[in-house]
Amino acid sequence: MKTSFLEKKIGLLGGGQLGLMMAQAASDFHLTPEFLDSDPKAAVQPFAISHLGSFGDYKTVLDFGKQMDLISIEIEDVNLQALFELEALGKTIFPQPQVLEVIKSKANQKSFFKKFGFPSPDFIPFEQSKMEEMKEFLPAFWKQNEGGYDGKGVLKIDSPTDLANIPNQTGFLEKKVDIQKELAVLVARNQTGDMELFPVVEMVFHPTAHLVSYLKSPADISAEVESECRRLAQSCIEKLEMVGLLAVELFLNTDNQVLINEISPRPHNSGHHTIEGNLTSQFQQFWRAILNLPLGKTEAIFPYTAMVNLIGEPDFVGKPKYQGLDEILAIPGVFPHLYGKGETRPFRKMGHVTIVAQTLLELEQKVYFVENHLKITA
Amino acid sequence: MKTSFLEKKIGLLGGGQLGLMMAQAASDFHLTPEFLDSDPKAAVQPFAISHLGSFGDYKTVLDFGKQMDLISIEIEDVNLQALFELEALGKTIFPQPQVLEVIKSKANQKSFFKKFGFPSPDFIPFEQSKMEEMKEFLPAFWKQNEGGYDGKGVLKIDSPTDLANIPNQTGFLEKKVDIQKELAVLVARNQTGDMELFPVVEMVFHPTAHLVSYLKSPADISAEVESECRRLAQSCIEKLEMVGLLAVELFLNTDNQVLINEISPRPHNSGHHTIEGNLTSQFQQFWRAILNLPLGKTEAIFPYTAMVNLIGEPDFVGKPKYQGLDEILAIPGVFPHLYGKGETRPFRKMGHVTIVAQTLLELEQKVYFVENHLKITA
Repeated sequence: MKTSFLEKKIGLLGGGQLGLMMAQAASDFHLTPEFLDSDPKAAVQPFAISHLGSFGDYKTVLDFGKQMDLISIEIEDVNLQALFELEALGKTIFPQPQVLEVIKSKANQKSFFKKFGFPSPDFIPFEQSKMEEMKEFLPAFWKQNEGGYDGKGVLKIDSPTDLANIPNQTGFLEKKVDIQKELAVLVARNQTGDMELFPVVEMVFHPTAHLVSYLKSPADISAEVESECRRLAQSCIEKLEMVGLLAVELFLNTDNQVLINEISPRPHNSGHHTIEGNLTSQFQQFWRAILNLPLGKTEAIFPYTAMVNLIGEPDFVGKPKYQGLDEILAIPGVFPHLYGKGETRPFRKMGHVTIVAQTLLELEQKVYFVENHLKITA
Repeated sequence: MKTSFLEKKIGLLGGGQLGLMMAQAASDFHLTPEFLDSDPKAAVQPFAISHLGSFGDYKTVLDFGKQMDLISIEIEDVNLQALFELEALGKTIFPQPQVLEVIKSKANQKSFFKKFGFPSPDFIPFEQSKMEEMKEFLPAFWKQNEGGYDGKGVLKIDSPTDLANIPNQTGFLEKKVDIQKELAVLVARNQTGDMELFPVVEMVFHPTAHLVSYLKSPADISAEVESECRRLAQSCIEKLEMVGLLAVELFLNTDNQVLINEISPRPHNSGHHTIEGNLTSQFQQFWRAILNLPLGKTEAIFPYTAMVNLIGEPDFVGKPKYQGLDEILAIPGVFPHLYGKGETRPFRKMGHVTIVAQTLLELEQKVYFVENHLKITA
């Protein structure tokens, strides 16, 4: 009889859309995790106990964490010093602070991949003093070590002149890879060491614009590639000795090799479709992992599932208007999730839509309909 | 562009487990309905804006409703006078107060069925002065007009001596029916007049004890019986001119006739399995109906779905312990929902478990496992 997890006081650092969906999943057990976020309009705010304060601030995190039995995160960019101190005070923190230390910095991630022999694009630190070496390394991407997200903190560096555009931030150059597909896989691990993986998903790019159009599950890949993705993800979470849910973003290059792009130690945008699409959602799995419960089976419920991010239209800033919501609600198997952000901005993630279908054609038609009818303006 | 539903201030009378599941469904749109309940530990309390006060009190309901654009209920036993007054003040109330007036009283329900020719067990008012007439009407059930739920307010009256057990409450005698099966069906109707029905479900009784063991979807009935159930439910919501979600509980008698037992103008215990089991859940459908959105398709996702109520063990009162929760979480396709009630009491509904399966045998095995492993003690 190990049901004491229902009694635990749980604190989460961050209260954005991931926090909202964590809270939704927790509510099935009537669990009431408490969230720390400095935004009084954070997405989770109306649905959970919310503490106003910065998850990047040492004292705030320390004071918040001291009230909790179990501490977790919904964003990496948190005050690690406070977490290490809370760990020393005997608090349970999943994912563990040392895992966050590896993952929080993209440079640390690269070193971790190298140390354990995980295939990943080559990289060199960005150093003004090594300009010649860097020029020979091009074409590449410059990546900021910490704090980047949703494409921020990444620059395409095709030619030596582009090197001048790099901001004064610590970062590195990552060799450009000839990408065949972008893939992602989620793996969960609990304290007992049990692991469960979700089916590999694929980012489908717009046929003309160089932009992710939607996420598709399952990925259109060979059994060998699927198996290699799973092996890498499982090995990654084991080498990290991590408890929690790990998202692994991967490249399949034109030589059919699988490379790790980035890892995130939490529920991830590439798993939102699992809420409706899989037997256990990534958010339920996250709780099962950090509460040391049996992990859920992750099989897909429908033959095809897609996820479309709802992003703010380019030319609008202000209170969001969700145009076309009625029209998409009339389509069966279409599940909108709105994050309730008070302001839309160009390309800001405002929500997502899960789409399920019996055939690939049906999926593509529904995705096309949703992308063309649901627009976020101001 | 009719997305103004996202801007509406919505008030719900009642904040129990139905309110909790309504709030969960609303959170996908980041809707924040506000709930009125006199219990500071009402199930919905940690997950939504909660107002402390009695939904049975005229002034409390009036003051609460005046702050809202749209008012709905999660329990029938509310102050109707206040709702009629709010309607007169121009507030939108779904289901409408006149519908609640019909349904709130079981005697009114019987008169409604009779008026429109809906098949339902015969009944006569309980009147001390008509003892001889009543004796000839036996065997029967005495039913309290108002306020009964979960079997409370119902007495089995097999013989004339049982008549002496009837409490001093307004009620009626309902002729005992030879029941082959107990069925239920949910129907939703929006302001536009669109309707959608959920597949008919069946209450499966324990083979020896005379108790509902679990709910099964789909019901094991002929296409003709399914069709008759659907016809009755649809006609019922139309005759009521109701906007919202109506639960219709039915008897299939030993002559293969379908009779209406009772109706409820809200999400219902007989629809909890739809959260995981159907393309749209009853709670999502409730919101779609009262917000005049396109109704969702209700098809079952899995071949077989069951719902087991988690009720307090007979001999325990106090802070609940959920024994065996870990064990049932290890079974795929098993989804526990805990309502977070602070105290367990004999037979109190403390939660439910949805179970999905590919075959009937698999369903029955899982139900048996859940019923035998998950126990609520104190």
